[in-house]
Amino acid sequence: MGELRGGVIQRQRQTRRRLDEPVVRVGAVTGREMDLPRDPRDNTATAGLVRWVEANDLDHGFEVSIEKGIPLGSGMGGSAASAVGGVIAANAVASTPLPDDDLFRYALLGEAVASGSIHPDNVAPCFYGGLVLTRAVDPPDVVSVPTPDAIRCVLVHPRRTVETREARQCVPPEIPLDEVVRQTANMGAFVAGCYRNDLDLIGRSLRDCIVEPRRAGLVPGFAEVQSAAMNAGALGCSLAGAGPSLFAWARADDAEAVRDAMTSAFNHHDSATDAYISRADGPGARLVEREATRAG
Amino acid sequence: MGELRGGVIQRQRQTRRRLDEPVVRVGAVTGREMDLPRDPRDNTATAGLVRWVEANDLDHGFEVSIEKGIPLGSGMGGSAASAVGGVIAANAVASTPLPDDDLFRYALLGEAVASGSIHPDNVAPCFYGGLVLTRAVDPPDVVSVPTPDAIRCVLVHPRRTVETREARQCVPPEIPLDEVVRQTANMGAFVAGCYRNDLDLIGRSLRDCIVEPRRAGLVPGFAEVQSAAMNAGALGCSLAGAGPSLFAWARADDAEAVRDAMTSAFNHHDSATDAYISRADGPGARLVEREATRAG
Repeated sequence: MGELRGGVIQRQRQTRRRLDEPVVRVGAVTGREMDLPRDPRDNTATAGLVRWVEANDLDHGFEVSIEKGIPLGSGMGGSAASAVGGVIAANAVASTPLPDDDLFRYALLGEAVASGSIHPDNVAPCFYGGLVLTRAVDPPDVVSVPTPDAIRCVLVHPRRTVETREARQCVPPEIPLDEVVRQTANMGAFVAGCYRNDLDLIGRSLRDCIVEPRRAGLVPGFAEVQSAAMNAGALGCSLAGAGPSLFAWARADDAEAVRDAMTSAFNHHDSATDAYISRADGPGARLVEREATRAG
Repeated sequence: MGELRGGVIQRQRQTRRRLDEPVVRVGAVTGREMDLPRDPRDNTATAGLVRWVEANDLDHGFEVSIEKGIPLGSGMGGSAASAVGGVIAANAVASTPLPDDDLFRYALLGEAVASGSIHPDNVAPCFYGGLVLTRAVDPPDVVSVPTPDAIRCVLVHPRRTVETREARQCVPPEIPLDEVVRQTANMGAFVAGCYRNDLDLIGRSLRDCIVEPRRAGLVPGFAEVQSAAMNAGALGCSLAGAGPSLFAWARADDAEAVRDAMTSAFNHHDSATDAYISRADGPGARLVEREATRAG
């Protein structure tokens, strides 16, 4: 279901400082990933800002400090989070703040540094929050889809890495027609289920018959973890992004049991996992605080 | 978009008469198509009833008279209409009426005589009415999707025939991944547009990038008719079923202009067309009258 993404809230923080000249710099990098590119054109948190500064004849620049909360290669959309956090924070100190549509475009350009091309599937939910469907990229056409109040998203991350590029190679350039028909129908039914607040319909349609079977082999224990989730009452369970994390949707009352079952199943294959439960309608990236000492 | 179907109301009528023995017979055939199969196993209006009678140890049978209102090979779902009309009428005189789920299954079996396999895409809207999405066939999982009150469906039928089998051969067994992603997104957005009552979103997503480009060549004038519809204000316009009919969705205020533009464009290629405008939420097949003299 490439384009429908929602997710667990992950904490990740970017700090922007206005500089007196129109340049972009990568400042301090802390948190879960310290080894990020120092060249602002290669860093997802800054690459969009470079384009912003270049295109808008700004009278100032940005220095970006990154506290990275999401591990790379986890399937949790960490590069999109950095790219979106970047533009939201920068906009708070920019001399001429940009409207959302422009910010979104610069976030897409930032994320493209990591994924190799424009991929709104993670950028859109980071930016807008909740469950969003990206109908088109250029121009971006992003549709927010409501989620039932009773839904919780469970995410379990085994501490190993899947290369997004390797994961992409598992999906062939052509897909059998019968799978296309089935998956298109699942997509329509899933969206209908969200609007109807129909958890049973969501459960029947939260299935990925195209990508999941081809990528599951990259994640040791996938089948066991998925089965464990479903047996514990999940409505659906599949790969988060390219993996190796798995997500499940579950009723609030079942979420902890689903999380524990998934964690336990993963533990047969990986020594360590991180697990999260969140609502499906969490907010997008937002300004948390404004330092009194900021320049400008 | 194989599975989402709604449509123009077409009049077609089946009459059932109870017989004292558990057999099914094809009675009078009138209307637009008179040359229908006389063997009840080969006639879409009766094939489902043959299975019904065989499977349910009935103490009676059915004789079926058919007033055919929809031309064969028109893309207007005539065989589904016959199959559904058949079971609805028969149920009205059956000694033990069946629940909807069973009737729907027998209608699918009737339609399969025409299409060669179980295809709920036309049977489901004929049976349930309005716009329906068929998520799965076995067991059937049919989702009714609301349509905006302002929507009208325009259907223009050039009096020529497209063979469903020929049309199917135009669609290859495998579809490029980028088209799959785009069409899946369109499906999700289209369903969202219907729930949101968002005519602009419906207009952007009522697109078929998979089947339409491959089948359009079977319909002389397709591109002109589609352009004419869009220029006249249609939200979207594509093949109805396998063609040669084209449908458009339009705002009620634009529907007549769209119909006239499509008809005019078709007339450059075909001498004669039939055109229809209806709401998108029309009722499904239903009992119109009950003859006082029916047996049993």
